[in-house]
Parts: sequence; structure tokens; C-alpha cells
Amino acid sequence: MRGKYRDFVRIEGAVLLILAAAMTIPFILALYYREKASACAFAAVAAFCVLAGVMIRIAFKPSQEKFKSRDGFFVVSLTWLVCSIVGAMPFIISGAIPSFADALFESCSGFSTTGASILTDIESLPKSVLFWRSFTHWLGGMGIIVFVMALLPVLGISGQMVAYAETPGPIKDKVTAHFSDTAKGLYRLYLALTAAEAVLLRIGGMNWYDAFIHTFGTVGTGGFSNYNTSVAHFTSPYIQIVIIVFMVLAGMNFNLYYVGIIQKHGLKSIFRDDETKFYLTVMGIAAAAIFLYNTIADGFRDVGGTLLSAAFQVTSINTTTGFATDDFELWPTFSKMVLFAMFFFGGCSGSTGGGIKCVRILVCMKLLRRSFSLKVHPNRVVPLSLNGKELPSDVIIKITNFIFTYLAVLFAGTLLLSVDNMDFISTLSGAASCLGNIGPGFGLLGPTMNYSALSAFSKYVCSFLMIAGRLELFTVFMLFSRRYWNSNRV
Amino acid sequence: MRGKYRDFVRIEGAVLLILAAAMTIPFILALYYREKASACAFAAVAAFCVLAGVMIRIAFKPSQEKFKSRDGFFVVSLTWLVCSIVGAMPFIISGAIPSFADALFESCSGFSTTGASILTDIESLPKSVLFWRSFTHWLGGMGIIVFVMALLPVLGISGQMVAYAETPGPIKDKVTAHFSDTAKGLYRLYLALTAAEAVLLRIGGMNWYDAFIHTFGTVGTGGFSNYNTSVAHFTSPYIQIVIIVFMVLAGMNFNLYYVGIIQKHGLKSIFRDDETKFYLTVMGIAAAAIFLYNTIADGFRDVGGTLLSAAFQVTSINTTTGFATDDFELWPTFSKMVLFAMFFFGGCSGSTGGGIKCVRILVCMKLLRRSFSLKVHPNRVVPLSLNGKELPSDVIIKITNFIFTYLAVLFAGTLLLSVDNMDFISTLSGAASCLGNIGPGFGLLGPTMNYSALSAFSKYVCSFLMIAGRLELFTVFMLFSRRYWNSNRV
Repeated sequence: MRGKYRDFVRIEGAVLLILAAAMTIPFILALYYREKASACAFAAVAAFCVLAGVMIRIAFKPSQEKFKSRDGFFVVSLTWLVCSIVGAMPFIISGAIPSFADALFESCSGFSTTGASILTDIESLPKSVLFWRSFTHWLGGMGIIVFVMALLPVLGISGQMVAYAETPGPIKDKVTAHFSDTAKGLYRLYLALTAAEAVLLRIGGMNWYDAFIHTFGTVGTGGFSNYNTSVAHFTSPYIQIVIIVFMVLAGMNFNLYYVGIIQKHGLKSIFRDDETKFYLTVMGIAAAAIFLYNTIADGFRDVGGTLLSAAFQVTSINTTTGFATDDFELWPTFSKMVLFAMFFFGGCSGSTGGGIKCVRILVCMKLLRRSFSLKVHPNRVVPLSLNGKELPSDVIIKITNFIFTYLAVLFAGTLLLSVDNMDFISTLSGAASCLGNIGPGFGLLGPTMNYSALSAFSKYVCSFLMIAGRLELFTVFMLFSRRYWNSNRV
Repeated sequence: MRGKYRDFVRIEGAVLLILAAAMTIPFILALYYREKASACAFAAVAAFCVLAGVMIRIAFKPSQEKFKSRDGFFVVSLTWLVCSIVGAMPFIISGAIPSFADALFESCSGFSTTGASILTDIESLPKSVLFWRSFTHWLGGMGIIVFVMALLPVLGISGQMVAYAETPGPIKDKVTAHFSDTAKGLYRLYLALTAAEAVLLRIGGMNWYDAFIHTFGTVGTGGFSNYNTSVAHFTSPYIQIVIIVFMVLAGMNFNLYYVGIIQKHGLKSIFRDDETKFYLTVMGIAAAAIFLYNTIADGFRDVGGTLLSAAFQVTSINTTTGFATDDFELWPTFSKMVLFAMFFFGGCSGSTGGGIKCVRILVCMKLLRRSFSLKVHPNRVVPLSLNGKELPSDVIIKITNFIFTYLAVLFAGTLLLSVDNMDFISTLSGAASCLGNIGPGFGLLGPTMNYSALSAFSKYVCSFLMIAGRLELFTVFMLFSRRYWNSNRV
């Protein structure tokens, strides 16, 4: 095997070992809750991972070849595929989700931090399995990224090229140096965020189990709950507000946290960022619009409840988490339209959120503004800047290309899902939700519904959309291009 | 009044005279069919137009100021506004459409060649009024553009700058010289197309009245019919095929006809054009996909009928005509999705069709293709060419900006329409249909339905969307920019 491919396999071997380590927690829980089938399943899969991982690490020697960015694309896509398939195994073996298409869907949804589910009665599943389901969010959200970034230098491979393909959204300039340190820093931030939310939820009256499940769903911007009614199960406004705050935090750029907190540039630097401002403004406007419209349509009954519900649903969709406290399917069309627009915005770059990402929408809006002044003053030079720095034209082109690709993939996904002959909006919103890593859609896939009614074919399509959306499209589509493989052969 | 504004008013005076001349035809028809109220209405409006037009031409002397392109934006928008309002008058005065919002909607729909209607029982209207309604398509389709282009030089004002704002889609290079001659040439082509279709429809068994009504709807890519069931009223496959062929022809670039036929470069040159090829390919693929899907879903009953229906509906939507021979609302979701995609493609640049226009979608697809090869080979220079010529980067940016603006306007329109609280897809497709100058949407605004249930507010929103879409957005939105007015003042 050529050296580079040896390295790829070695990395996947390490990934298997990490997955085995991760499964020890649900295994212990299964023992604690006396869930025999689940305990066996986790033990079996973990054993398989350790065996395969160790064998790979022994059999394949590392090469000295340098990683190129396109190798990064490959490894990253392969890692998500391996995680999704291996992560689905406990669901199948324990008997909790016997069908392969269903288990793969749930695992892809977990690792891609989407939160779409095919489960019709979540509460009937073993607790250890539900824990694993939510834990995949946590691992997926930023975990795997950070694992890989922190791990690769240990393996003697510079993580930088992989990160080029991986970091969600356009890369911030400050984080490229000292990559391994940065990864560890991000990892600590992620852990701190997790611990803080779990403790705050525990204080609000959740038990530790529920607190961790919902924390995983929040900080990974995933959205799996262990209750059929999602977060609506908890009527406490305190709990809902804590989750809102942490959803907002999880949707922000972790690189800014790194610079602001670990490099001690101060918290103010986070909020001086153009994208952060835009992200918070968009959510504020959307929540205010929905609140006003719903409360007027509702005749001012329960103004506080309407406000909380608007804020929760907007935050949940905009950060691409997908938790629900209200059935927005019952909202007036205006509010649904505002929420549907949020399907596309997504979180900030460098966050665990999905979607197009706020920075791209922001640049796109700046582009439009510039084009208008150019129409009026054709000869004036108007630079396009972000955070006070002029954006190079190739970055702008990359951003517009991304948006067009996103819309093209959305269309293709919608077309494939439409074979199931659901109604128009269920089909469209389902594809948009999976591609944007959100979770719920509208209509038959609304927040009180699930994806169980989809055909196996559509479940595979959704699984693909979730992974493609999570990996910023190009990473995955690259592998389908003939040019990619030709250039590797040369 | 400053010289430039005097010229603007003079042009609108001429527009009023043209409208008066146009109204003599429905006036004569009203006399012939003994429709008293309509005859009075057309006489009154025409008399008003002549009076106002002549007074303006006498009162305002021409200035010698040179037209700038932004003056063109202004005049063009003003002209469409004047035509839409004056065109609505006969509807109101004759009592056929008593409400102002309704009459304006119908008139905007006519002059913008959209074909959306608020009429619930078309056949109950006087024949002369229905003729005027369809005649606005013919005038609007390319008529007014050509009128203005041919008229302005006569008024001593170079038409070139106006045309810069007006010509639908990116301008072709060959037509800019000798503008007045070109306009006359285009005018003759348009007349020839009209005559040819009317005669062919007459041969197919239509009476002359029906033949002209449907010809106006076809060559203007409008879509108003004088029958409640639209073209489905005529079961003859011959008639449907004639209309399909002329819809396809009307959606093609008239500048290519000019170069190919009047400048005698041969018909082949038309089909060598990249946009024409793309336009025909897209329609072919869409029709084939829908035909195959529908005929399989239908169990191969009436294969010929399904083929004709798929071809008709795809052509009708893709050319943004909006005639219907089948209720596509009853089609499988897959076919509806394909058709909905066609809502965005539209006709070719330089045609009477609306939508984003094929050339822009084509460039966008080429952009994406290039971006993929750039990801694989970051240092390779891949030029982006159309018809063998490299596209300058500012043209590419204009095209991407247009598409983003289109989507942003669509979103804003959808949001405004959503206040009516129709379901999701009716709202979205209604806005897309008006903006793309198509006519029917889905759901409550499907091909067998109409826009009558909309609130007055929504009807004004739709009217605005139709005009904005017809004038390629920037022309209209320019007028809302503070910079535009500031720069005029200086």
C-alpha cells in the first residue's frame, strides 16, 4: 500500500481506539442500569474496535509522506464514515434500533450533530443506548475535530492540513500557529462549557443523567433529547433559559473564545467580531419578530410564555441545535417563514453549528450592498471588509460558491427525498434540516414528528446530507470528483 | 423643473399617447361586440391619455441634457408604473374589475407578462376587456421595450442608455450599435412571430379572437387565457403543440434572432449559442424526467397524453408563460419539485421570459465547476468562458449578485405574503411565481386556482414583485436607494 494510504488507515485505527474508549461510559451505565443487551452490545463493539485498532496500528507502519490538503479532505470524510458506521453498531446489536438504515441514520444524525431522529418512542429505549446516542453529539460537535487535531501531531503528522478541510467556516487568522496547543485549548473550552451547563441544569432540578444528555445536545448543537417531547418535558423557565444561553454560546466561534479567554485578550474581543454581532442581531430580530407576531395573533395571552417560546425556537433553529419546547408547526405562516429562513443562517464559523454559517451570509449581504452603490457610481471603488480588514476577492468567490453549492445540494436532496411523495414543505424542509444539521423540519417532519416514516432510500439520502452538511460540502464532494482521483494517481 | 426631469415627463407623455393608440383596438372590439360599458371605458381612458399626453408634450420642452444610465433606470420604472396604472383604468371604469387593488394586480400581471390573475370566472368578462387584458401581455412582453427603444431616438434622445437598464439579462455585444434600427428589427421579428402563431392557431380551429388572445399570451410569455381552464380548453394536440413551440421560441434571445435572421448570419448561429443550448437542454431534461416519473406513477395509462402534458407544463413554467393544460398540483411530489426548480430558471436573456434567466444559472454552474477544480488544483488558472469568450470577473460578480438579490427579494416577498396566513408552499410559490413572472404557483395558487383570495395588501406586494422581477430588480430597487437620490441632487 502506498505510504499515504497507510497513514490514512493508521488514523482510522486511532479513531477506532477512541470510539472504544468512548463506549466504556455507556457500557458502565448499562451495567449500572442493569441493561444486559446494551451492556453486551457496547462490550462487543468496543472489543471489536480495540482489536481492529490495535491490529491496524501494528500492521501499518507510518510513512514519512507530507499531507496535502486534499489528503485532509479524504481522511476527514473517512473518519466521519467510520464513526457513523461503528457508532450505529450498538443500536443494532442491542436491538434498540434493529434496522441498519435506521441505526445509520441515527448515528449520522448524532455524529453530524443534527439531532434528526427516526425514533417514535424515545423513552422506551434503554438508558445506556440513549446516553450513547447523545454522546455522539458531544463527540461529533467539536469532539472528533479536536480529537483529530490534538491526535495527529502525536502520530507525527501535522494536523494543520487536516484542519484546513475541517474547521467549520472560513478560517480565522490567529489560530493557525501552534496547532496542537490550540486544539488542546479548544478542547478545554469545550469541556468547561459542558461542565458549566451540566451543573446549571442539575441546579435547575434535572438529575445528572438528564443534565448530561441535554448538555451533550446543547454544546454539540445536536438536539437529541431523551424525552419524546424534547425540552418541552421540562416546564421550568430556568432550564429553558439555561439551554437558550448555552445554545447561543455553542453557536459562537470557538476560536474567538480561545483568543479571548485562553490567550487573555478579554471577553470584549469576542463581541467586537463582525460575525458574532451579526449572529446575535439576526437571532434577536428573528425572535422579536416571531414573538410580536405570535403574541398579537394569540391576543396577548401568556406574553411571557410566547416570548420564551419564540426565543427558544429561534435559538434552537439558528444554532442548528433542534431542541423544541413548542410545536412551531402550529404557528402562523409568517413565524414559520422567519424560522425557515433561520434554517439557512446557521451558527458562526468555528462553532459546532451547521447551516451556511453567519459569516457567509454576512459577506453575501455586504456584497449586495456594494453592488447597489456600484450601480449608482460605476467608477467608485468600494472595498468589502470584515472586522476592518479588506476581504481578498478569492475569499469572496469561495463564499459565493459555497452558498450556490449549498443551494444546489439542497435541491438535489429535495429531489431525492421527493420520491417518498411526502408533501412539498415536508420534503423541502426535511432536506434543508438534514443539510443544515438542524433536526426537525416542517409538516410531516415537524418538531413533534420524526423521520421514521421515510423509506430506507430516503434515510440514506438524509444520512448523506447530514454528513455532507457537517463537513462543509466540498470535503465530501471532492471525493466524487474524477479530477481528485486522477491527480492522486499522478 | 430641471431639464432631465422635463425629459422624463415628456417620455411619459409619449407613453400615454401610445397607450391611447393601443386602446383603440379593444374600443373597436367593444363596439363590434356591443359592450357599451367597456366601449365607454376605453373611450374615456383613451381620451384622457390623448389629452394628458398632448398637454405634456406641449407644456414641457425637451432639454439638451444627456441621459445617464441611472436616468434610464428611472424612466423605465416610471413607464411601467404609468402603464400599469393607466392599464388598470378600463378594468375599473367598465365595472369588469371594480376593486383598485384587483385591477392594478391584473394590469401589473399583464404588463409584466406574468399572467397571474385575480379573476374567478374569466369567461364572464366582456370580450373587449379580456382582449385588453391579453393585449397588455403583448405590449409588455417586448412591445413597450421596443416602443421605448424605437421612440426615444425620434424624441432626440439616444435610446442606448435606457436599453442598458432595460434589456432583460446580460447584454449581447452585437446589438449595441445602430440602436434604433435594431429596435425596429426586433419589433418586426416580434410582429412576425405573432402573425405566424395566430395563423397557425386559426388553422388548428381556433377563431381569430381566441387565436390572438393566446398568441399575445404566448409571444409575450404572459399566460392570460380567456377561458377558465386556460389552454386545457382546447383538447387538440395540434393547438397545444403549436403553443409549446411558440413558447419555446418566445423564451429565446431575440437578439440572436436579429443576428441570425435580419443580419442573415443563418439560423444555425442561434443554436450555437451556449445559453440557447442550455435552455433547450434544461427543458428537455425536466420534461423527460417529469414524463417518465408521471407515466410510471400512472401505470403507463395514456403515455402520449402524459408526454404532451409534461412538455406543455415544463415549457410553460420554464419560459415563464404560465398557461396550463393540466393541474400539476395533482402530480407526484417529485414532478412538482422539478417544476418548482423551473420557477427559477426562466427564459433566455433578451427574451420576453422572466425568472433568473438561463445565462445566469449557466454561469453559476460553470463557477461551481471551476471552484471544484480549484480545490483539487489550487494553483491552476481556469478561465470561465461563455460562447468561447472569457467572462470578465465584474460580469461574473454582477451575475452572482443578481442571483443573491433575487433570492433575498423572494424571501422578503414570501415574508410579506405570509401575513395572509396561507400555507407554506402557497405563500412561497406565489411569491416565486410573481417575481419570476410566471403566473400560477402551487397549493392555493395552483394552476386551477387564482389570486383572488389574497388580501389587498398581498395583491399590492405581488404587483410590486411582478414589476420588480420584470425590470430585473436593480432597475426598481435603485430608486429606493438613498445614494441614488443624493447623487442625482449633486
